[in-house]
Parts: sequence; structure tokens; C-alpha cells
Amino acid sequence: MVGPLEELINALKRLPGVGEKTATRYAFYVMNANEEEIQELVRTIGEVKQKLRLCSRCFHLTDVDPCEICSNTKRDASRMCVIETPMDLIAIEKAGHFKGVYHVLHGVLSPLDAIGPSDIRLSELLDRVRNEDTQEVILALNPTVEGESTAAYIGDRLKGHNVVVSRIAYGIPVGGSLEYSDPLTLSRALENRKKI
Amino acid sequence: MVGPLEELINALKRLPGVGEKTATRYAFYVMNANEEEIQELVRTIGEVKQKLRLCSRCFHLTDVDPCEICSNTKRDASRMCVIETPMDLIAIEKAGHFKGVYHVLHGVLSPLDAIGPSDIRLSELLDRVRNEDTQEVILALNPTVEGESTAAYIGDRLKGHNVVVSRIAYGIPVGGSLEYSDPLTLSRALENRKKI
Repeated sequence: MVGPLEELINALKRLPGVGEKTATRYAFYVMNANEEEIQELVRTIGEVKQKLRLCSRCFHLTDVDPCEICSNTKRDASRMCVIETPMDLIAIEKAGHFKGVYHVLHGVLSPLDAIGPSDIRLSELLDRVRNEDTQEVILALNPTVEGESTAAYIGDRLKGHNVVVSRIAYGIPVGGSLEYSDPLTLSRALENRKKI
Repeated sequence: MVGPLEELINALKRLPGVGEKTATRYAFYVMNANEEEIQELVRTIGEVKQKLRLCSRCFHLTDVDPCEICSNTKRDASRMCVIETPMDLIAIEKAGHFKGVYHVLHGVLSPLDAIGPSDIRLSELLDRVRNEDTQEVILALNPTVEGESTAAYIGDRLKGHNVVVSRIAYGIPVGGSLEYSDPLTLSRALENRKKI
């Protein structure tokens, strides 16, 4: 009907989880936004792909290499948190508790999807543990079958290295209720009970 | 932390209903999308503001003037549907039932927000009814206090003109249930009952 508007709606529908209605709302925001906001949006979309690359050390997205976390001398480089994606890293950074460094695997082992050890940043992780002064590797992988087996695989490969390998705790989320927790989470929470 | 990524997330957070998490998901989509998709997105965002203007007749968004609906001789120009926004027009067009023409008010009367008759396309509506061969004005305004009073105001102003003024029906939505309908909708549905 309205050419350019329909085109924009179709382009916006490619965003994850965005259907016709949401895309239409976004398109009307764009339509009514002032020129500066639009310029800002277009500029940042263009720049994110051009400027960002992977940190050569931890493989997080960055515009400087090594990234700001790796080059920050205030961070404890002896503790390394291993995550699946840059999004996981951002989530942990937002929580603000962890002061060590990271290693982004960019995936997990998944034989069904033909993703083996050479398809993720696993050898780079082992190299870092070998060459850097790493004392603890904290595995913060998702509690999925693939995450679990990747954690087990990494634990295995790091045996014999002089390094503590740990896993983040799985249990009832803070503010969650027992009643609505799934059986697996409940089992894990019971299994990992702590003395008080 | 990551400059360009954070900038993009902040720009995306201005979209309606988008918070930190959704903006982050969209930013990672942009990050991982191929070059063509990004070009398409940037182009359509830029074009929608440049190319679209308001139809000088019905005030819908259009890239040709008069718009495709107004210039379509197959549409029944004697029946005019009055809506608040171009989004309402698109919703009605998607339903596919209405074959007349439209008039977009671009708002409703709202004394509390200092929006009076001269702030919306109301005089243009009255001009059209006077000068065009309009036989029915169908008010399809939202069932809000402002929508109702705007409908009443328009009805008032069109008295004495040789034109039928009607309102779309309010009631239980198709597929909806009586049990979960709000009292106002139920009252309306009862009030507007039809003989079968």
C-alpha cells in the first residue's frame, strides 16, 4: 500500500521476535522521530559492524584490541570466567560482581549440529590457561545438555593443569518460588544444598 | 564497555516498548546479520522519512499525492471512514472489508493535553464533507473518553449537512469470552444488542 512504509516494516520484521504489529509500531516511531534520532540510529547500526571485532585474547566484541576488560589492570587476570556468547558476558558484567577476566567460546559443543572442539574457541582457552597465570577457570555455561557436556569436556582437558575448575551454581532463582520451579531445577537445588 | 555496541543498544532502546534486554537482542542481530540486510534496514529507515508525506486529501501517509486509496476509482468515495492515526487505517485495510475512503484526524480532541479542534485535521474533514459527494461519515475512533467526545463533536458539527454519521460497533470481540470482558465492554455489548 504505502511503499516505503511497507518496505521498512518488512525490514524490521527480520529482528528477532518481531512480527507485523511490532514492526509497524517501530516503523511509526521511525516515521515520527526527529532527524537526529534517525541519524543516530542509522549511524550506530552502520558502525557496530564496521568497528567491532573480536578481542584477540578473550574473543569478546570490542573496538580496541585487547578489549577494555583484558587491558584493565584492576581486573584479576588469574580468574577466568568461560561463557558461551558476548551476551552472557554483558549479563555478568551488568551484575557487577565478577572482577576477573573472560573467555568467550562463541558456542558450545553440539555433535548433533556438527559443532566440535575446533568450531568454538576451545584451543584458545587451553592456550590461555597454559600460558597465562590462570588459577581458576569458572565455567558459566548454560544448563543445557550441550552446556553440560562442554563443561565436562573442558574440565577433562584441564586435568593435569595446575588450575581450579569450577561451575556456577544452578538452583532456584532469587525471588523464584519452589512451587513453580521445574523438576530438574529443584533436583539441582537439592543436590547443591549448602550447610547454614 | 563495548563502545559501538552500547551506543547501538542505547539507540534501539528508544523504540517503543524496547528495554535493555530486547535492545541487546536486536543489537546482536544487527551484529550478526549479513551486509545486505543491514544496508536494506538502513536504507528503508532513511527513506521512510524522506519519501513519505501526508496525502493532501485524506492525510494518510503516502509517497504519491493523492494517495493510492484516494486516487483509486474503484473505491466508494461517498463513504468516508474517520480514524485517529495512519496505523488505524492500515489495520482497517488489512481487515479488507471496507471499500470506501478515509480521513485521518491525526489525533483526537483532548482538552487536558491542550489539543483542540485546530490541532487535528477536523476543519479539513468538514471541508471534504461540504465539497465532496460524501453520503456517510463512519466514525472509527477508539472507545476512549477522548475518542467518544471527538465523535460527539464531529457528529454535532455535521448536523444540518446532508450526510449520515455512523459509529463502528463496540462489543465483545470475536472469539472473546463474556467471562473475561470488562464491565464497560459488556454494558456496551448489551446496549447495542441486535434482533436476530
